Amino acid sequence: MCKKIINLGLIGFGKVGAGVVRVLQDSARLLEEKIGARPVLKKIADVDISSRRDVSVDRHLLTTELNDILDDPEIEVVIELTGTTLVAKRLMLKAMSEGKHIVTANKAVLAQNWAELFATAKKNRVGIFYEASVGAGIPVIQVIREGLAANHISRIFGILNGTTNYILTRMQKDKINFEEALDEARKKGFAEPDPSLDIGGFDSMHKIVILSNLAFGKKIEIKDVYVEGIDRIDEKDIRYGEEFGYSLKLLAIAKETGTPGVLTHQQRVGKGARHRTALHSMEKNLRPAEIEVRVHPTFLPKEHLLSSVEHEFNAIYIVGDLTGPIVLYGRGAGQMSASSAVIGDLIYLGRKIVGGNAGEISGLWEERRKGIKIKNIADVRSRYYLRFSVVDSPGVLAKISNILGRHNISIAQVIQKEERRKDVVPVVMMTHEAVEKNVQHALSLIDRLKIVKAKTVLIRVEDGTTFC
Amino acid sequence: MCKKIINLGLIGFGKVGAGVVRVLQDSARLLEEKIGARPVLKKIADVDISSRRDVSVDRHLLTTELNDILDDPEIEVVIELTGTTLVAKRLMLKAMSEGKHIVTANKAVLAQNWAELFATAKKNRVGIFYEASVGAGIPVIQVIREGLAANHISRIFGILNGTTNYILTRMQKDKINFEEALDEARKKGFAEPDPSLDIGGFDSMHKIVILSNLAFGKKIEIKDVYVEGIDRIDEKDIRYGEEFGYSLKLLAIAKETGTPGVLTHQQRVGKGARHRTALHSMEKNLRPAEIEVRVHPTFLPKEHLLSSVEHEFNAIYIVGDLTGPIVLYGRGAGQMSASSAVIGDLIYLGRKIVGGNAGEISGLWEERRKGIKIKNIADVRSRYYLRFSVVDSPGVLAKISNILGRHNISIAQVIQKEERRKDVVPVVMMTHEAVEKNVQHALSLIDRLKIVKAKTVLIRVEDGTTFC
Repeated sequence: MCKKIINLGLIGFGKVGAGVVRVLQDSARLLEEKIGARPVLKKIADVDISSRRDVSVDRHLLTTELNDILDDPEIEVVIELTGTTLVAKRLMLKAMSEGKHIVTANKAVLAQNWAELFATAKKNRVGIFYEASVGAGIPVIQVIREGLAANHISRIFGILNGTTNYILTRMQKDKINFEEALDEARKKGFAEPDPSLDIGGFDSMHKIVILSNLAFGKKIEIKDVYVEGIDRIDEKDIRYGEEFGYSLKLLAIAKETGTPGVLTHQQRVGKGARHRTALHSMEKNLRPAEIEVRVHPTFLPKEHLLSSVEHEFNAIYIVGDLTGPIVLYGRGAGQMSASSAVIGDLIYLGRKIVGGNAGEISGLWEERRKGIKIKNIADVRSRYYLRFSVVDSPGVLAKISNILGRHNISIAQVIQKEERRKDVVPVVMMTHEAVEKNVQHALSLIDRLKIVKAKTVLIRVEDGTTFC
Repeated sequence: MCKKIINLGLIGFGKVGAGVVRVLQDSARLLEEKIGARPVLKKIADVDISSRRDVSVDRHLLTTELNDILDDPEIEVVIELTGTTLVAKRLMLKAMSEGKHIVTANKAVLAQNWAELFATAKKNRVGIFYEASVGAGIPVIQVIREGLAANHISRIFGILNGTTNYILTRMQKDKINFEEALDEARKKGFAEPDPSLDIGGFDSMHKIVILSNLAFGKKIEIKDVYVEGIDRIDEKDIRYGEEFGYSLKLLAIAKETGTPGVLTHQQRVGKGARHRTALHSMEKNLRPAEIEVRVHPTFLPKEHLLSSVEHEFNAIYIVGDLTGPIVLYGRGAGQMSASSAVIGDLIYLGRKIVGGNAGEISGLWEERRKGIKIKNIADVRSRYYLRFSVVDSPGVLAKISNILGRHNISIAQVIQKEERRKDVVPVVMMTHEAVEKNVQHALSLIDRLKIVKAKTVLIRVEDGTTFC
């Protein structure tokens, strides 16, 4: 403990940047105590250094020149909070090549450049810390990386975006439509002026790319993720889903199938050596490991814990082979919540710097499982909620179920609804598990039938059995 | 990274011990990769080394002599899983004095000897890791110590004991009584042969002592904790509570009151410098900081997230000043879940050993806040559920509410129940917030009234407002 000061450079002085600065000021003594060295904010760079922030800083700290930070050899840690993508990537690469560690909240940059960024970190023996990039102050990154390090993680289900969860909650609880709910979210400050990243599912996509790279030790890129947003959700479907006992959530799903990892704890460790020999041959017969990653509106059983995650809250459901399910819940956005994560990383990293092993392996990432395949959405198995808009005449249901049957899709439940518009009635269905490409093919045939008057609505369903 | 082997000694070869050994065997390669060195189990000590376990080990590893581990200079880490108290304490002190690190699941020993154990660790520059002691595989210790390190934690609410939560869930959902539910818990393996540690609230007490020492940085001992178990819970009260909209949980509560920590995030950081000056004078007028720690049956609003924690599951609700509420949920007991925590600690510690800074501060604990007072249960403020057993005659309610009124206890809701035993009727009440000693004094007077035929039932209530 001969190190007394750790110099920081902050790039990006927006809302979260200001929050971080405030914690650095207000909790200076506590931070020094926890780290064992004094973190000193040496420079703050932003394109705008004249607007007022809700924190006061010495004018001399401010600069519009990135290089005032990147070229300063005394600065050991760059806190990257720009919210940009290209600029952020360039500055992170540059900073690392100068031997600086990175703390960032930038999910888009991480999701787009994961392998490259970590390769650069490894080469330069620096760390990248990104707790704030998923779930803000919910320490999910650390939990996966360290707390569950002994586990083989087989599944992650995440409500990772507060805006969309707020909108869906309002639509479900207050029976308002998408536009009204989006308006409310805007008024409450839960939606950006341009909410398309959230609504379209892309924010959740960035986050699940990060979580699944981390959890599976497999390079997973944005192009590997199937994404569907909530902008086309009709409140009618939320209501019908409720009648079947389901809540609608924008769920980010990452699953490993076909591997030992999906055997339950009981199967794996239940009955001693003889049992494990049997298991071994079982494992050999399993399909090879595959990973599927997707983001889409999903019906969840109402009694499932994730269904009670309401409004702007986030939650992450993780299944480890040793722990079984673990859930983390909290506010997944907000200035101070994100600052908590950034400062938490800073404490963690600071301790490593003090200990002299900041470049060691635990902050980094390497692909451990190159062989494993990534599953195309077409091959995914799921249950489905389907709403057909059909003419009200005899034989309609027979025609539809005939096509479904030919595609190996069996029906679990049907509700036929009466409606004011008598020429078109909705037929609502819950299927048993089926293969996505079969469902898509069946629907393309059904939607061409004369008795079908509008495009069929499809919403995927995760039921209780997939959660263990 | 010149270190290739880390020698381990395991003391206590019971259920969790066997689980840990199995993970060490089955995941040897993964662990070596994650740690950067190979963990080698060099000795296993237990009083019984002849019974069969569900894992096979080389006989030469087994010993009945603790000193084969404690005196072996090559063993760097002692995994303590004895489930004892005196023996465990002695062996932990001895191991640390020999420069060995400790990984333990032993909540009782930690709760009883917290300050002494950590002082010894500090003196010998070794670490104590204890993730498995609370919530088994739920990584709550690491989340508080690291993930939330930037926060001032003001409140913890925990469902920390699976046995009692299973019993209360069954009583509430299936309308069975305490004895029947306990029987079921025994059959399912959720209750020990002697369940008194669980039922009496002492297991939860040990765990909340650990969490509150850690979260508040204040020495909190067992004697500081008010404890009440669930053995006297009448299923009638669960039913009446449900009518008021509450679920019954055995809740472990740790709160800091009277400090800046209890100001909301909005109050603290809402409106810039001028606001903070006002705040500063507000803080000066607050009562000095106090901590209260208690374990007792508690009514929670049904819509609260903790109310949906059912059966053997555990959950911990933590309020940080930056993050707001964070909830962790999972299976809080079981062989493999506990093993996950032990191995997680081992990975964490192993990386520190490899990095050469295993003795550094972050694994340790020091009292940071000596001045802060611990509140006696008599001074605690709470809402109360009260059930009076009274004769069915006019004026009874007036007499009771008169005494309550004189003690500053105001009534929020009353239900008077009809019962088969017509000579005695229950009167059920929910009070507004009141001070415990006033309530106790009022009840002692009420219970002496001739119209009162049995001891009044008191159950404390936490409502939504205290959760933010």
